[in-house]
Amino acid sequence: MPEHRVAVVGASGFAGALCAVLVERHPSLELVAATARADAGRRLDELYPRHRVSRELEAFEADRIAGQADAALVAYPHGASAPVVAGLLERGLKVVDLSADFRLGLDLYEHHYGRHGAPELLGEAVYGLPELHREEVTGARLVAAPGCYPTAALLALAPLRDLIEDAVVDAKSGVSGAGREASQTTHFVSVAENVSAYGVEGHRHRAELDQELGQGSRITFTPHLLPIDQGLLASCYVRPSRELSKDDVRELFENAYAEEPFVELVASPPGVRDVRETNLCRVHATVEPATGRVLVFAVIDNLWKGAAGQAVQDLNLMLGLDEREGLS
Amino acid sequence: MPEHRVAVVGASGFAGALCAVLVERHPSLELVAATARADAGRRLDELYPRHRVSRELEAFEADRIAGQADAALVAYPHGASAPVVAGLLERGLKVVDLSADFRLGLDLYEHHYGRHGAPELLGEAVYGLPELHREEVTGARLVAAPGCYPTAALLALAPLRDLIEDAVVDAKSGVSGAGREASQTTHFVSVAENVSAYGVEGHRHRAELDQELGQGSRITFTPHLLPIDQGLLASCYVRPSRELSKDDVRELFENAYAEEPFVELVASPPGVRDVRETNLCRVHATVEPATGRVLVFAVIDNLWKGAAGQAVQDLNLMLGLDEREGLS
Amino acid sequence: MPEHRVAVVGASGFAGALCAVLVERHPSLELVAATARADAGRRLDELYPRHRVSRELEAFEADRIAGQADAALVAYPHGASAPVVAGLLERGLKVVDLSADFRLGLDLYEHHYGRHGAPELLGEAVYGLPELHREEVTGARLVAAPGCYPTAALLALAPLRDLIEDAVVDAKSGVSGAGREASQTTHFVSVAENVSAYGVEGHRHRAELDQELGQGSRITFTPHLLPIDQGLLASCYVRPSRELSKDDVRELFENAYAEEPFVELVASPPGVRDVRETNLCRVHATVEPATGRVLVFAVIDNLWKGAAGQAVQDLNLMLGLDEREGLS
Amino acid sequence: MPEHRVAVVGASGFAGALCAVLVERHPSLELVAATARADAGRRLDELYPRHRVSRELEAFEADRIAGQADAALVAYPHGASAPVVAGLLERGLKVVDLSADFRLGLDLYEHHYGRHGAPELLGEAVYGLPELHREEVTGARLVAAPGCYPTAALLALAPLRDLIEDAVVDAKSGVSGAGREASQTTHFVSVAENVSAYGVEGHRHRAELDQELGQGSRITFTPHLLPIDQGLLASCYVRPSRELSKDDVRELFENAYAEEPFVELVASPPGVRDVRETNLCRVHATVEPATGRVLVFAVIDNLWKGAAGQAVQDLNLMLGLDEREGLS
Repeated sequence: MPEHRVAVVGASGFAGALCAVLVERHPSLELVAATARADAGRRLDELYPRHRVSRELEAFEADRIAGQADAALVAYPHGASAPVVAGLLERGLKVVDLSADFRLGLDLYEHHYGRHGAPELLGEAVYGLPELHREEVTGARLVAAPGCYPTAALLALAPLRDLIEDAVVDAKSGVSGAGREASQTTHFVSVAENVSAYGVEGHRHRAELDQELGQGSRITFTPHLLPIDQGLLASCYVRPSRELSKDDVRELFENAYAEEPFVELVASPPGVRDVRETNLCRVHATVEPATGRVLVFAVIDNLWKGAAGQAVQDLNLMLGLDEREGLS
Repeated sequence: MPEHRVAVVGASGFAGALCAVLVERHPSLELVAATARADAGRRLDELYPRHRVSRELEAFEADRIAGQADAALVAYPHGASAPVVAGLLERGLKVVDLSADFRLGLDLYEHHYGRHGAPELLGEAVYGLPELHREEVTGARLVAAPGCYPTAALLALAPLRDLIEDAVVDAKSGVSGAGREASQTTHFVSVAENVSAYGVEGHRHRAELDQELGQGSRITFTPHLLPIDQGLLASCYVRPSRELSKDDVRELFENAYAEEPFVELVASPPGVRDVRETNLCRVHATVEPATGRVLVFAVIDNLWKGAAGQAVQDLNLMLGLDEREGLS
Repeated sequence: MPEHRVAVVGASGFAGALCAVLVERHPSLELVAATARADAGRRLDELYPRHRVSRELEAFEADRIAGQADAALVAYPHGASAPVVAGLLERGLKVVDLSADFRLGLDLYEHHYGRHGAPELLGEAVYGLPELHREEVTGARLVAAPGCYPTAALLALAPLRDLIEDAVVDAKSGVSGAGREASQTTHFVSVAENVSAYGVEGHRHRAELDQELGQGSRITFTPHLLPIDQGLLASCYVRPSRELSKDDVRELFENAYAEEPFVELVASPPGVRDVRETNLCRVHATVEPATGRVLVFAVIDNLWKGAAGQAVQDLNLMLGLDEREGLS
Repeated sequence: MPEHRVAVVGASGFAGALCAVLVERHPSLELVAATARADAGRRLDELYPRHRVSRELEAFEADRIAGQADAALVAYPHGASAPVVAGLLERGLKVVDLSADFRLGLDLYEHHYGRHGAPELLGEAVYGLPELHREEVTGARLVAAPGCYPTAALLALAPLRDLIEDAVVDAKSGVSGAGREASQTTHFVSVAENVSAYGVEGHRHRAELDQELGQGSRITFTPHLLPIDQGLLASCYVRPSRELSKDDVRELFENAYAEEPFVELVASPPGVRDVRETNLCRVHATVEPATGRVLVFAVIDNLWKGAAGQAVQDLNLMLGLDEREGLS
């Protein structure tokens, strides 16, 4: 018996569509609307045959959505999201926003993304990484789901937070992370048999690391594009501020994650495929004997724990549900 | 008119087979023999239809090879290689060895690979990275072709050699780097839609970095397996011992490589596919503004510049030929 | 509350491992044992991290299995399966066998596979394609799950059974269909960027088509290996014995499959990815105007509807459960 | 010493860019111009780093091109090509056109593609499959390079031409065959782990088969999209009009292709990768014992023998050069 009525705004993109699927299958949620801009009028399973959700996409209209839903997952591009979120909050909905619009403080945001459309809401927005901010998420009416790269990198680095002298995050993502828009970058022929770094002099996702870890200038973050569709690996190389043994590291991670339902500590470097189509983050942490560096490898499915899955996890918390519901 | 008669010893593996192909097509070399162990008696194009070299693989016999050839490319596994190389040198051939057997000093070798089969030859063996050791290669009778990972990492790091405070090398390789042997690791189903780190606490290839850069304990090296067949990217993150501007970095790399026929400096991070089936190494070096780290991305085809192509480049030098011959 | 105790015999291969996963998650089944030969003693999630089933694989022993289980899924290679199945039946278990051992009559079997290990059981074995033999499956104690190719091809052709003058089945499968054994055929480097036909002069799976369709000499069946891991497409080209309009064809397929829970008729050619990790078969049937040929395209996941999923569907029927249980 | 000056018109697409590369490297041709529409002003190696041709793309202007070049390869989309070709012929150039504009007679063309822009030229245009029309190509001033699918299918079927009762051509192509334009169809995420048929009720390429084989209504042609970038396999299933033994078939194919420099007959079904980045067509022909059907499998690289390579082969013939020049 669904207890909560949920709308997905921007359901034609990869993350939004998966939001719709997850809400549709969720035992305590009812999918009452799925909106799209260019694709309004088409059925979701036309765009994504594999998803088998036959709901028709509709144009967004705040009043209608507010009449139908108690909560919304908003999966618009940054910039477009803020005003829509503001309109839904005003009408009394709880909102999880998947864009960057509510992840950062105003200064960081405007530095990386330009003018903000609803700066008055930044004060109450909660950064929706439950493993770090579970309590705030639980009480929030506006949660910003973290970026896919920061999700993996933060889960890898958070247990070491006060011990990072400097760190390198070499992150690798499947193509779905680049979104549904067709471009030379996402053309099969560009991606097949290829791999390369991009955004090497300052990817926007680093701002989230800086904000959450407070390490600013000492963390290098470099994303790479992989010839796979879903999956993200953050390989993190930390120079610790004091010598750490393997046992120290194991203890730090076990303390941090022993109770976490979606973080699995494993004994060897995980493959991204081990978590495909799940909301899990698998983490392997160790110490390189020759250098004393702490090496942490964290894998997620960028569309699940890196986007839609995490948004549903946040929503579960906001609605007082078990955060695992609908995600296993 | 081929001037030199060359044997390829161990031509059934990926690198050895490509050696045979390159020698066969080389304007100044004649392929006089291609040997194999388990696959002796089969034709090379049976094993590799794409290569179109119809020569029959024969069992190795030092005297017969010595009667036919002036030089040999040896592509045996480490350990198996040393005695074969010794036998060929003794019979007067020049040899490029593609295994690890002659890349390292005795201590480093025995630490990483076990007992050495011909330690008396280590003194004269030259590390065959022409960009660093062209002169020694030219005069050598025994050259050890570098490993695929060290080739990319060293070309990325060498121009910074005296300026490295510490460095992280996050390296990513296609599956052909794991060799032709069928295993769960190389099974298509293990590799597809996957990526992971391996050998994270000390891959043997790091010994080559240590030896060539003399930075030992400060370089972290971590290999990853990619779902592509050929191609290798070394993403290198260097904390310099003094502040370097982008112009400084550009100048260092231009000075190092302006005259190099197989190193291309490019203005943005290269893709591995840009150098597929070539002997080129493409390098992009820059400075990350927020941290001052020097970021260097170097791509090669692991079977070409990372193995067979480089071996032929070495052989060209040893034989007094233009090092580019047969490689473009 | 699981009602039936099930053992999976041969759980280390791709299909057997998925059987174990499906039984483990099944609301009415309890996984009481998972056996393996070479891999006994290892945990299933060591072999398949993505499956997250931590059960230890044990050596097979008929008496012990019979003491624990009411039913078994047997996923041994053909030939090895028959004696094991016989032993389990004798001890009172119901069995679904995934090998070829009980799919064919004795003559056809011995022609294609050699001597049969338990011919006395062939009389009662039921060919486990529920869409064609639901009633027999329901009452059976021994069911032979069909091969992956025949499953797709038969679902494509069965509605046309009495109208086939001749037919060509051009079938394409992902690499998991070739099994877990590592070989040159399944090596990533052999498969990547490649596709080819194999077994072109008589693949064993054709015998199942002949037996079920009774068309023997008029059906051409050619399998191809695709560079994907899971998924199978049967493209079927039928010359009908009388002219059929598109409406005729639609009606034939709707009549055949309107009530089928796992067959979906779709309006355009399906992609294998549309059914990945599901027990569905998607079918598109049409008539080529220029030739009058009936074209049918059927996709399945070869490990689900082509193996483990179908075996569980069979088992559900044999145990009096809803055949969809544990499969959606 | 280049003897002929050649312009490539429309060099920004996959086939046009490869034309430019092949002309650039051709010992007897000089690349005097490469034009593009949207990408004029950019360098070719910006669009295709892997091609290493640094020439700047220029806007098309017939008079300027005619002043520079003796011949042109035109790689425009159908419809756009005809007027450009007409303008170049008028100015005295020899032209190989890679579009569909000059492959078909007027009726067939207008049925499949719409109104023709230069119907007066159709009379002299030669269908540029050298293996079938070498003599006409040699004397022509306008040659239409065949489509990629018809190239493979015709090479597979031509030796059987008068013996085809009916035939099914199940063709599979890599994504580069769909062109450089970014779309949902060519998005990596749509293609990865997928395969499907398309254009099943009448793909335009079938018109070329009909025209060349004269079998019209009896040939079924169905293309499929594969998750690879380059490569095309035509699996052909022929019901012969009289019984043929394997020896008969071998003889027919040997007679047809013994002297052909770009057709290789092989003893088992070829993989598309065997001919990647070559102008070869590999063919395996056999008879299925159970049905008497003739099975023919032909592989090409769709960008080489299926487009640019074949265009250069045609141009070689038109210019009196060895047709293999610049293609091996």
